[in-house]
Parts: sequence; C-alpha cells; structure tokens
Amino acid sequence: MQQTKILLEESEMPTHWYNVAADMPNPPAPPLGPDGNPVTPDAMSAIFCEPIIQQEMAQERWIEIPDEVRQVLTMWRPSPMFRAHRLEKALGTPAKIFYKYEGVSPAGSHKPNSAVPQAYYNKMAGVKKLTTETGAGQWGSSISLAGQMYGLDVTVYMVKVSYQQKPFRRSMMETWGAKVYASPTDHTQAGKAALAADPNNPGSLGLAISEAVEVAASNPDTCYSLGSVLNHVCLHQTIIGQEAKKQLAKVDEYPDIVIGCCGGGSNFAGVAFPFLADKAAGKEVRLVAVEPDSCPTLTRGHYAYDFGDSVGMTPLMLMYTLGHDFMPPSIHAGGLRYHGDSPLLSQLVKEGIVEAHGIPQLATFEAGVQFARAEGIIPAPESCHAVARAIIEANACKESGEAKTILFNLSGHGHFDMASYDKFFAGELENYAYPEQAIKDALSHLPKVG
Amino acid sequence: MQQTKILLEESEMPTHWYNVAADMPNPPAPPLGPDGNPVTPDAMSAIFCEPIIQQEMAQERWIEIPDEVRQVLTMWRPSPMFRAHRLEKALGTPAKIFYKYEGVSPAGSHKPNSAVPQAYYNKMAGVKKLTTETGAGQWGSSISLAGQMYGLDVTVYMVKVSYQQKPFRRSMMETWGAKVYASPTDHTQAGKAALAADPNNPGSLGLAISEAVEVAASNPDTCYSLGSVLNHVCLHQTIIGQEAKKQLAKVDEYPDIVIGCCGGGSNFAGVAFPFLADKAAGKEVRLVAVEPDSCPTLTRGHYAYDFGDSVGMTPLMLMYTLGHDFMPPSIHAGGLRYHGDSPLLSQLVKEGIVEAHGIPQLATFEAGVQFARAEGIIPAPESCHAVARAIIEANACKESGEAKTILFNLSGHGHFDMASYDKFFAGELENYAYPEQAIKDALSHLPKVG
Repeated sequence: MQQTKILLEESEMPTHWYNVAADMPNPPAPPLGPDGNPVTPDAMSAIFCEPIIQQEMAQERWIEIPDEVRQVLTMWRPSPMFRAHRLEKALGTPAKIFYKYEGVSPAGSHKPNSAVPQAYYNKMAGVKKLTTETGAGQWGSSISLAGQMYGLDVTVYMVKVSYQQKPFRRSMMETWGAKVYASPTDHTQAGKAALAADPNNPGSLGLAISEAVEVAASNPDTCYSLGSVLNHVCLHQTIIGQEAKKQLAKVDEYPDIVIGCCGGGSNFAGVAFPFLADKAAGKEVRLVAVEPDSCPTLTRGHYAYDFGDSVGMTPLMLMYTLGHDFMPPSIHAGGLRYHGDSPLLSQLVKEGIVEAHGIPQLATFEAGVQFARAEGIIPAPESCHAVARAIIEANACKESGEAKTILFNLSGHGHFDMASYDKFFAGELENYAYPEQAIKDALSHLPKVG
Repeated sequence: MQQTKILLEESEMPTHWYNVAADMPNPPAPPLGPDGNPVTPDAMSAIFCEPIIQQEMAQERWIEIPDEVRQVLTMWRPSPMFRAHRLEKALGTPAKIFYKYEGVSPAGSHKPNSAVPQAYYNKMAGVKKLTTETGAGQWGSSISLAGQMYGLDVTVYMVKVSYQQKPFRRSMMETWGAKVYASPTDHTQAGKAALAADPNNPGSLGLAISEAVEVAASNPDTCYSLGSVLNHVCLHQTIIGQEAKKQLAKVDEYPDIVIGCCGGGSNFAGVAFPFLADKAAGKEVRLVAVEPDSCPTLTRGHYAYDFGDSVGMTPLMLMYTLGHDFMPPSIHAGGLRYHGDSPLLSQLVKEGIVEAHGIPQLATFEAGVQFARAEGIIPAPESCHAVARAIIEANACKESGEAKTILFNLSGHGHFDMASYDKFFAGELENYAYPEQAIKDALSHLPKVG
C-alpha cells in the first residue's frame, strides 16, 4: 500500500510562530495615521488589546505559542497532510503533489488558527467581549468558536444580505454561543445613519466593519478582532507551514513549489512564510500566491498606501491595492474578494521573493471538481484557486518530465458552498472580464500620503 | 498539556473485518422468501453481486479487507479518537469520555466505510453500474464517492421532496460524478405507476427503493447497493470499533460503556460489535444502542419477521420492527427514521447482550449544542443521540462517583443539518408524543410467516 496521510502527534505541534519580518530584506513599512505619521501602539489600543498590538509590531523571528493556545488547537491540530496519489495518476504527471488540509477544524477552514490565539490574548488582557464583522461567515464562525473556548462574549455583525441568504453559517455561530446581528443595525451610529438614509440597506462588509469597530472603540471591555491582512494574523497562521515542513521531512521531501490561495493573505502566509526562512538562507523554493482574475490585487494592483477597509476608517497600509472602494465582481470565492492584501505579503511580492498568479473563476471550479473526483474532499471555492495552480504546475512537470515536489494548502472544505458547485454544474457561473474601468476609477481615489 | 487526540498510522489500520455472527450465542436467523423458506443466494443474485452475497451469509469470525479497499480508505482512515476533556470538565464528571470521529470522511459520516468495499466488490464482479435510493442524502453521497473511486456509474433515486428542499447533498453527489434523479421518475414501472396515480407525487423512501431495485433487477450489468441493516454493511463498519480498541489501548484504557446511535444499525454495529468479541470471552462491557423516542424500534418494537422496506418487496427479516408501513414523525435525525433494525443487532438485543435506550428529540439537540460548545465539532442530529446518552452516563458517574470509561461514536458532522439547529434555537422543534396508535396499526399489518 502507498502511504497517503502524513500525521504528526500532538507532541510534535510547533511551539513557536514564525515571524517573517525577521527574514525580510527590508523592514516592513509601518502603517500611517491620518497625519501621515506611523501609527502608535497607543492609537491601536482603542480597539486591540496589548499583546495583539505587540505581536503586530514584533521583530523577533520566533514567538512562543502559549500552552493554553496549543491545548485548544489540539481540537484539530496538527492537521493532516495528504499525498495526492490519485490526482497525480489522473493527471499523468511525474510531479509529487502533497496537500495540507485545514478543513479539519470545527469551523472548516484555517481561520481558527488565528481566532484561538486572538481570543486567548484578549481573555488574558481582561477583555470581556469581542466584536467582528463577517460576510459569508468563515471568520465569524471561527471567532465564535474561539470565544466560546475562553468564555468571551462574541458579537458578529453579518452583512444583512448574507444573514438572510446564508443562514447556515449564522446557525453555526449561534451554536457556538455568539450573538449575530444583521448589519446595519439600529444600535450603532454607523448603522443608524445607514438605515436613516435607506431603511432597506442590504449592508456591506465596510458597513459591518464600521459597526464592529464602533462598538469596540466605545466600550472599554470590548475589543475588535480581524481575520486576515494584519501581521499578527499572518503570524498565527504560520503553524500551518511549520507543520508541513515537519510532515514532508518525515517522508524525506522538500517542496520545489509552495502554493496558497490569497485574499487578505493570511492563508498564503500561513503555508508559505515558514519556507521563506529557508529561501532567505539560500534554499531554492518557489512561493506562489494565487488570486482570482477578477480581483487581481497582487497581479494588477498598485503598490501604494491605502485604507484597509472600503470606507477609509483604518490606518493607511503600504500594500498592493485595487483601490479601497473597488467592488469586485460577485465571485463565489467570497474570501478572496478583497481590494488590498497583507502588507507583509505585498512587500515580499514587490521585492520578487513571492510570485503571484491569477485564475479565472470557471477554471477554479473545474479544478475543484477534478480534485474531488480524485481525492474525495470537496474544496472550498477559495481553496480551488490553489488546487487549480497545483494542477497547472503538475501539468508543466508532465510537459518537461520533471518530478517536482508540489505542496499546496487546502485551506477549507466546500460543505457550505455546494450552492456554488450547483451553479457551476448548471452552467450559471461565468468568467468575469477584467474589471478595468472599475479598478482604474478606484485607483484614482487612492489617499494622498504626507 | 493534556493529550486530546489519539491517532493511528495507516500501517495500523485493521486488516480484517470482524463478523459478529461467529460470536453470537445462537446462529443468525435467516431471511425468508415469500414462500416462507430461507432465501437462497441465487435469489439474491438478481440485485447483489456474488462477493457481497457471500459476505451477507458469512460465518467466519475474520474477513480480510482487500488492499485495494484499504488503500481507498486511507482517504480518511484511520479516523481520529478524541478525549473529551472540555466536555468532562463542563459536566464535572469523574468519567473519562472518549469519542471516535467518523465525520472526517469526505462525505462527512461513517457511511463510506461500507460504500467503498461495496463499490470495490461490484467492480471486481464486473458490474458497471450501481443504483441506490437516498432520503436526506448521506448514503447517496457515500456511494457516489465510492463509485467514483473505482470507475463505476452510480445512479441515485432521491426522494423528490428532499431533492427539491435539500439541494446541497445532491450537489455533492453530482460533484462525485453520480446521476441523481428525483423519485418518482418516468423511467421505471414503479415510478410510472406512481406518477400515473398522482403526477405531483412527492416521493417516498419506499418508492425510491422500488425504483433502484427495479433498475438493478432488470439490467444485467447493474447491481443495487444498500447503506445499512444488512449483515455485510454491519461487517464493513466494524473497522470503526477495531480502530477504537487499538486507540484506547494506546492510552491504557478499555471502555466500561460503548455507545452508538441506531437507525438501521450499521453505525452501532461498527463501533460496538468488535467489543462484543471480548464480552463473549467474559469481559465486562456495556454496549448501548440509542434511538429516537419517536421511532423506538429496539425499545418498543416487536421481535418478528417483517419486510425491510415499506412496500413489502424485500425478503422477510427477523428483527425488531414497528411495522413496515409505520411512518415515523418528521424528526431531524433522518438517518434514524427506520421502522426496523439490523437482524444481527436485533437478535443481540433480544438475547440481552446489547441494551437499547430512546431519547426525545429536544434532548438530543441540547446535547449537541453542549457538545459543540465544549468540543468544537457540531454533531449530526443522528450523532446527537449518542452524545446525549454519553452525557447521561457521565452524569450518572458524577452521582455515583465512579470514574468509568465511556466511548461513543460521533458518526458524522452537522454541516448539512444547520437548518435543524436553526429551528432548535428558534424553538420550532418539538418532542413528539409516542406514536402509539400508528405503531399499533402498523404492527397489525405484520406479514404472516409460513
């Protein structure tokens, strides 16, 4: 029999997170406040707790994972790695394809890797309540789960149209004890203003962020929690890539190519950053971020200071951006519909250390179905982007006859996305044309700095 | 740190299935044909392939699992076992609670444990196509996945009302390449007759079985596949309990109580039968089957010969039954709404070797939510029955001060059942009164034997 799964015991779980800032050729560019000066920790403390702010600014290479966090992570970690024997055979490729599977978390994706430490540090800092926003619900359910583990109240502002159309993620959050509101609500200034202008406002992610941040800023016992983009979120996710290195070492492998899908960047950071430490030391390994063609932040965005949210409330971050008010087409990989990207990852792309590629929507679902029929697991639409790129690389190996080792992160399962697969089979999905004019318009609204 | 997960390497996966017939005090009662005589293998061959019929009748204690089956099972097996530290703490019990988790299969439940070998044996026997029926879709998706692995065409007759109201399981089956029809269809005699009588017939499981069996019986290259009740299905599931024994042995434990939810019986058989081998050898261990109060087959049914299906097409089986035309209330644990039970399991209950208990619907969801908030995983409504009983046993330990070891099988996750949790939170679920008159009526229709 061929070995399929490569497992780690709990005792082999990483004890430290890897901070890529320590190995970057240039120090990370700081976020800027409205005055054009770097944001101070004090300014951040209105919505984040002290330990999180420290991690956001940390320079040291290794940051210890508290035992109380590792204990909760054993709920699903270490996560399994699989050798995709059947997919390799179906492709007829000499490449060896390995995938790390993060869909085993109770929330079904990699997101709880950061939700758990965020909840823990807030609890330790005396915070009683966390607020966050959610669109499709991946992050909202992850922070609901994590809050429950440490006895924190969690309030989730869920975009009203998703709240109404996607009740299942909401039920998950409620099962884990969170309070979920359809945003806009009438109990924040931001929500009231939106409802006054239009009582039938369907909500938006920007508006939900405004509500969550307002509640956190105006209640001393409440903090805000974010599921991607920021440095501390990327940091927490590096447990993925570290486990992957150990697992590959168990079968005497090291990847030639590491692939992750990329929206705000935390999933890609999680699987790829730990390999960057080796790359910095001279090892040859390609790190490949994959994004939707219709929201091509890394491949066609500008590298500039921009707001992290769509309404201009956050500090300015130096990153690849399509313009903070760019509204991507309604593709089904909701987690990848973000105008910007992690500043750390953006800088690594800018410096040529990480490469980025776009994939059109239909190709991602074709890859997802091919993967499911070979490997069994039905990938989330976001993860289908990584699958699609892995197949492209494996097919290139078939052409060239090279037996490269490919690793990708299967960031989540598609159990809550079957309606998208349904539309794919019914021929109702499309490849959106590159939204040239919308991006041009949004980029013309980039904020002036200094 | 406390150990949470107990893992097995692929090399530790069981090599044989355990056949409980070898350890039963009395030989299993044979199924009877319309003439009152035991059904011959020849009669079965109209819809089942030779190796499956052999396994259905097998007497030997151990039956080897083919390597080609074990290879596909590595897709998710060995499945993890968890120690429920947080649940124990929440209950304040001295009991040690362990659970085996079968929700890691790509279909999300234990069902593929039998779907994979069934597809394999049919492929080996030269069968080209499998037919089956499905209600909510657990079995239909499992056989779709398994058929895809061995290159078999799979046709699923899905009860029309489920087909329309629960499109996500259907999308799963299609993702794995199966053809799914809303039953009744116009391409079987059974379907045509039903549609002629009522063009808006919403379908039923009995009707879907009729269609699937008719297609299998009338096409020489097609066989029928069933997901529970029969001996060979229970046999295939015993890999669960065998793994569980190995995992408990790794932490020097042996269960005092083994708990499984019970509809047709294959899940319970899977986790519990391997422990029966030890019980037969004098070991003390309680084997506890849990069923819904509203469909109380083992706890309030008659032990009698009855049809396996609702319309009277199958051979007669000696089992606990509520009457083949008993229609259980619409509880949300769809997989437990069956009028009968596995003849092997029924005989073991009759002989006092296995005990059975009922649980009302609301208590199962309360247990499921308590479990999710402690352990993270959201259980399927079926699995909530086992969780509820485990909590009852753990609370009894709290009363008595005994530190018993409790093992239960968490047969599947609830990702496709969040609408049921939603109704539970909204107060829209109820505890059905014991359907006394309906069962009395159905029992009065038991077939005469001989």
